[in-house]
Amino acid sequence: MTKSDPLTAFFNPHGVAVIGATTDPTKLGYGLARNLVQSNFQGVVHFVNPKGGRLLGQPLYQAISQVPDPVDLAIVLIPAAFVPEALHDCGKRGIRAVIIGSGGFRETGEQGAKLEAECLEIAKSHQMRLIGPNCIGILDTHLPINATFLPPPGPPPGEVAFVSHSGAICAAVIDWARGQGFGMSRLVSLGNQTDVNETDVLGPVLADPFTRVLTLYLEGVSDGRRFVHQASRLAEEKPIIALKVGRFSSGQRAVASHTGVLAGQESAFDAAFLRAGVIRANTSEEMFDWARALAWCPLPKGRNVAVLTNAGGPGVTAADALEMENMHLSKLKAETIEELSDILPPAASLVNPVDMLASATPEQYARCLNILLADSEVDSVMVILPPPPMFTAGAVAKALIPVIHHAEKPVILALMGERLIQEAVEHFRAARVAEYRFPERAASALAVLARRAEHLSRGEKSGKVPIQVDLKFNTRKESILSSLDKLQPGENLSLETVNDLLAAYGIPVAETILAGTVQQALAAARKIGYPVVLKIASPDIPHKSEFGGVVLDVRDETSLVKGFEELVSRINILRPDARVLGVHIQPLVLTGQEVILGAVKDPQFGPLVMFGAGGVEVEGLQDVAFGLAPISEEEAGFILGKTWAGRRLEGYRNLKPADRQAAIKALCSLAQLAADLPQLEEIEINPLRILEQGKGVLAVDARARMTAF
Amino acid sequence: MTKSDPLTAFFNPHGVAVIGATTDPTKLGYGLARNLVQSNFQGVVHFVNPKGGRLLGQPLYQAISQVPDPVDLAIVLIPAAFVPEALHDCGKRGIRAVIIGSGGFRETGEQGAKLEAECLEIAKSHQMRLIGPNCIGILDTHLPINATFLPPPGPPPGEVAFVSHSGAICAAVIDWARGQGFGMSRLVSLGNQTDVNETDVLGPVLADPFTRVLTLYLEGVSDGRRFVHQASRLAEEKPIIALKVGRFSSGQRAVASHTGVLAGQESAFDAAFLRAGVIRANTSEEMFDWARALAWCPLPKGRNVAVLTNAGGPGVTAADALEMENMHLSKLKAETIEELSDILPPAASLVNPVDMLASATPEQYARCLNILLADSEVDSVMVILPPPPMFTAGAVAKALIPVIHHAEKPVILALMGERLIQEAVEHFRAARVAEYRFPERAASALAVLARRAEHLSRGEKSGKVPIQVDLKFNTRKESILSSLDKLQPGENLSLETVNDLLAAYGIPVAETILAGTVQQALAAARKIGYPVVLKIASPDIPHKSEFGGVVLDVRDETSLVKGFEELVSRINILRPDARVLGVHIQPLVLTGQEVILGAVKDPQFGPLVMFGAGGVEVEGLQDVAFGLAPISEEEAGFILGKTWAGRRLEGYRNLKPADRQAAIKALCSLAQLAADLPQLEEIEINPLRILEQGKGVLAVDARARMTAF
Repeated sequence: MTKSDPLTAFFNPHGVAVIGATTDPTKLGYGLARNLVQSNFQGVVHFVNPKGGRLLGQPLYQAISQVPDPVDLAIVLIPAAFVPEALHDCGKRGIRAVIIGSGGFRETGEQGAKLEAECLEIAKSHQMRLIGPNCIGILDTHLPINATFLPPPGPPPGEVAFVSHSGAICAAVIDWARGQGFGMSRLVSLGNQTDVNETDVLGPVLADPFTRVLTLYLEGVSDGRRFVHQASRLAEEKPIIALKVGRFSSGQRAVASHTGVLAGQESAFDAAFLRAGVIRANTSEEMFDWARALAWCPLPKGRNVAVLTNAGGPGVTAADALEMENMHLSKLKAETIEELSDILPPAASLVNPVDMLASATPEQYARCLNILLADSEVDSVMVILPPPPMFTAGAVAKALIPVIHHAEKPVILALMGERLIQEAVEHFRAARVAEYRFPERAASALAVLARRAEHLSRGEKSGKVPIQVDLKFNTRKESILSSLDKLQPGENLSLETVNDLLAAYGIPVAETILAGTVQQALAAARKIGYPVVLKIASPDIPHKSEFGGVVLDVRDETSLVKGFEELVSRINILRPDARVLGVHIQPLVLTGQEVILGAVKDPQFGPLVMFGAGGVEVEGLQDVAFGLAPISEEEAGFILGKTWAGRRLEGYRNLKPADRQAAIKALCSLAQLAADLPQLEEIEINPLRILEQGKGVLAVDARARMTAF
Repeated sequence: MTKSDPLTAFFNPHGVAVIGATTDPTKLGYGLARNLVQSNFQGVVHFVNPKGGRLLGQPLYQAISQVPDPVDLAIVLIPAAFVPEALHDCGKRGIRAVIIGSGGFRETGEQGAKLEAECLEIAKSHQMRLIGPNCIGILDTHLPINATFLPPPGPPPGEVAFVSHSGAICAAVIDWARGQGFGMSRLVSLGNQTDVNETDVLGPVLADPFTRVLTLYLEGVSDGRRFVHQASRLAEEKPIIALKVGRFSSGQRAVASHTGVLAGQESAFDAAFLRAGVIRANTSEEMFDWARALAWCPLPKGRNVAVLTNAGGPGVTAADALEMENMHLSKLKAETIEELSDILPPAASLVNPVDMLASATPEQYARCLNILLADSEVDSVMVILPPPPMFTAGAVAKALIPVIHHAEKPVILALMGERLIQEAVEHFRAARVAEYRFPERAASALAVLARRAEHLSRGEKSGKVPIQVDLKFNTRKESILSSLDKLQPGENLSLETVNDLLAAYGIPVAETILAGTVQQALAAARKIGYPVVLKIASPDIPHKSEFGGVVLDVRDETSLVKGFEELVSRINILRPDARVLGVHIQPLVLTGQEVILGAVKDPQFGPLVMFGAGGVEVEGLQDVAFGLAPISEEEAGFILGKTWAGRRLEGYRNLKPADRQAAIKALCSLAQLAADLPQLEEIEINPLRILEQGKGVLAVDARARMTAF
């Protein structure tokens, strides 16, 4: 955050005016005034209330115009109806940053929404930025400033920043964090986001040198592409974890493609977070478990973990939990095992998990941890500490902490119990050592450290700019674009136009001849060579096979004549409404592996591409993965690896390896096409056949539809 | 547990002798003596130590023979080497129940294992039952008795019993449970299980009237079938939750079938727990989260949940979490919404989640909960309580508790925060109301209640005895069995024998003729009718297609001659070691849907059956599910429903419905076959084609192998 950032005043104000400060201790305006004064804020605090008087030893100014310099941030806590006037006054007083804490706006209905729009209008007219309305404010424990009206105590100082769409969750998280033993650096409650939104605050919040991790509670994202751009830049420096809720609240869109059905809002968020390097948490506890580990631990070089325990059962639990997280038990070196054997009793288990037995002393814990950390096969260590029968857990903690502080590898504690481990918990928390109850949560924390390390190393290798696909644009492009211009909103493209589009982007298409008559069909089949496939040609029937609109494996002229006539008459009966242009004749392509490629426009994130198992069972199998278009070849490879359809391209049993590289290129090309042509709502190749290595791919069928508006 | 149960003395002793009681407070023998005395045990406690003297105001007898009546349980805490003699003395004294707490047995190596075997021998000679060695003992908070050597305090009385293979985890769980605010009823640490194992104690522990839920920490199961039998009977009365660890520790078996590869130890446990109605937890915290809900809440009639909150954000989080758990938001009735509107402010949200707004009073919480509970669309309620800004969370708790206690539907609390909700937490815990931090864990608890209710209603409808398959045993059975007898251990069965077996169990098999020569092949194809399929016939090549051992779609005699010769010469080159009996000729079957059926022998649970997506990609797709053989048709249907291959049998888009009922019958038949013939290590039909409705199924290829030992 530079000095010139318009949001500076929110995060580093010189003087703060509380509009609506009051002596009535049951009012939020009192709570805010009290918090500001008690938070040890080093700038100046002013109180404004038309009634005048004094509050907490300071004057209550009757109007904002009377407030002396400096004042660069106002916090408004007055009834909604009076807020517009207060904003005007703030503007005239030269204040460019205002937090509206008051509710009574958009969240209450149409009347409130009008009032909120009016506020935004006024703010714009004064080049003023707004946070809120309907929020609980901002706090920074290091500056320090507590510009919220929450009941004390505020959070202790820490390294985890929290930005939230929900004010109630801010209050709960502050209280909960204290109980969990971690502090916060900055907290921003965004409220209705009439102006400043989650993307705007990412940079300013992460610019704080005390913040080591940013956690986000998101109910959505206002501008998907801008969020991805900002977050991916910032996540290179500091980890960002998001809990995105509202998974199931969005209505279904009207869609004609498999891709459209499968590309729910969540696929878009998954793809966006993947691109941005934002770590998605599934639960609130998981988010803050992960945040502590990321804030306090160095990153591991790999996924090999040593487990140090004083009992067998918890060691087995840890081994299980690590495997579930796709972490691996280190194979300890011979010298490590020898060193361990020097200090442990003969009955101890020296194979990872290392079980020192119940007699383990604090020194044994510390020395064994040191030995494990020195082993190059060990990337990180989980230390398990049930209440030790012979010593206090607190003594073990005291012995371990210096070792952990000197380690360049992450060490995570799995403490088991409650009362008997409480002293140890307090030592670890004070020392900023990440500790969890039971090995399962500790394993999850170790895994997130590994994911973070992998993300950073990917970033370094690949560069973050999507690779530009060689478009091979030819003279057909102009005519394709002009034929798109002629289509109606929401209209399906003809197969010819789709095929032309794909070919223009370098995706090979199976030869396809439209036959309006049986005679034309016979000629087409002769040209293509038997066996051929017949497909009904109708812009109104995107899923042809569902209406019996496909005849496969036509081997001779007799079958072709029969097939043509049956096809046309069947469609006339089943879909009398459909415009039938004739029948498409194609060669029968049975070689290669069948996949689906698709792209849809997501309302928040723009074009998404999909790769997966093709055919008619796409939606049943759900073996698909998504990315934000356009994509790099590296990202395409990653997406392929998330599906079985992608993994089997490398060959599997008697399935020969297919041209995986060509599949990656085709996915990148389709992504580029989708990014280039926002007038397309969806486009889908199903099936795309991936031929054997070196032979490329072949689009056998495809459909596309114009955006409806 | 009847009086005559040989384990009665462990759980309800009249007199307990501590062998190894000592005045040295650093020794476990002191801790145990102290715990027994302090636990308010109403029976008699005796202490034995050859040194004599007094301990805690009682005599230390020098020998067990001197201990006066009554004494029916001994607890041994002396060095391992002296344990056999002590057992002898106990036997002579007439004690039939002994807990050996001492370590130094099997867990330390060969010498210890010998000692342990000697102890078992001695125990048997006295009709004595042993728990341990290497365990921490038993406790019962209601009897009460604390026969463990763990440092105090023991757990508070409660409704959750815990049986554990790990002693360290017992210690941690007791301490942790106290912090989580739930008590325990009984706890059993099983140690090395030289005699009494996890299955033995299920009945006695669940017989305790105070126990409402049994939790199990399992590192394995000693006798799989007996465990399933006992657990499924007992789980009809009280819920059993298991955390089974050691998922990844078992070595891979040598297997020749897809089924064998996929049927890891975990599939067997999943199938066993499914059959037994044991709920499998993934983490320690999940197990006890669930246990509290099951112990304290009535069961819901269905999966429809009302959410009551005082803030929007947590309501969204709850809605998400419920959907992830496959729970549904109730659609509230019009009268419910009207009643809510009478007591809530106009800006409140009356659509589920019901958001009362931050101003919600304790009375509003209580009255709204009452209204929601009265709605027949509501099966359960999640009440969300972040620190309420205007009231204390404790006041809300006090208002809610009477409503929850009177409700016949489950009400679960999601409390958000720590310090500001602490008073509420304590009220709820004292009142046995299930409360969790954050909505996600509350949703998981509601879901487990629904699962439990569904399990019980399934049990009532179906009866638990597996349906006996009509075997249609014919005269072929005898000859099949005698041909099996001729095979070597581990040998593959011929296709003819496998087909005979399947046919004997009523599974239709595609016509298959073995041709040793081209002439025989031509004759076979004429009999079957073209197109045909050629498959190499060799007992040494179970996966034929991987070696090019199959020629599909042979349409005429010329192709057949060519195919036959190429096939034989290809196999001679690729697998010169294989015994080639000729070529099997079959009709080409392309109709119907392709699935795989398999059965393998699990070392712990005996025969398992598998159903799933067939073909060569079985292991890649992993669209399979398992059951314990034999299975009922209802269970077979449930297993089908767990896979896409099973679900699509009902039809999907242009995929016609297939004969699902015949698939179920075939699965039951194969399960019966596997149960009847323990000499088979594995048998697999791949593919089985499920024909259209009413047309049955057809086994196109199959393989089987004899057990190796």
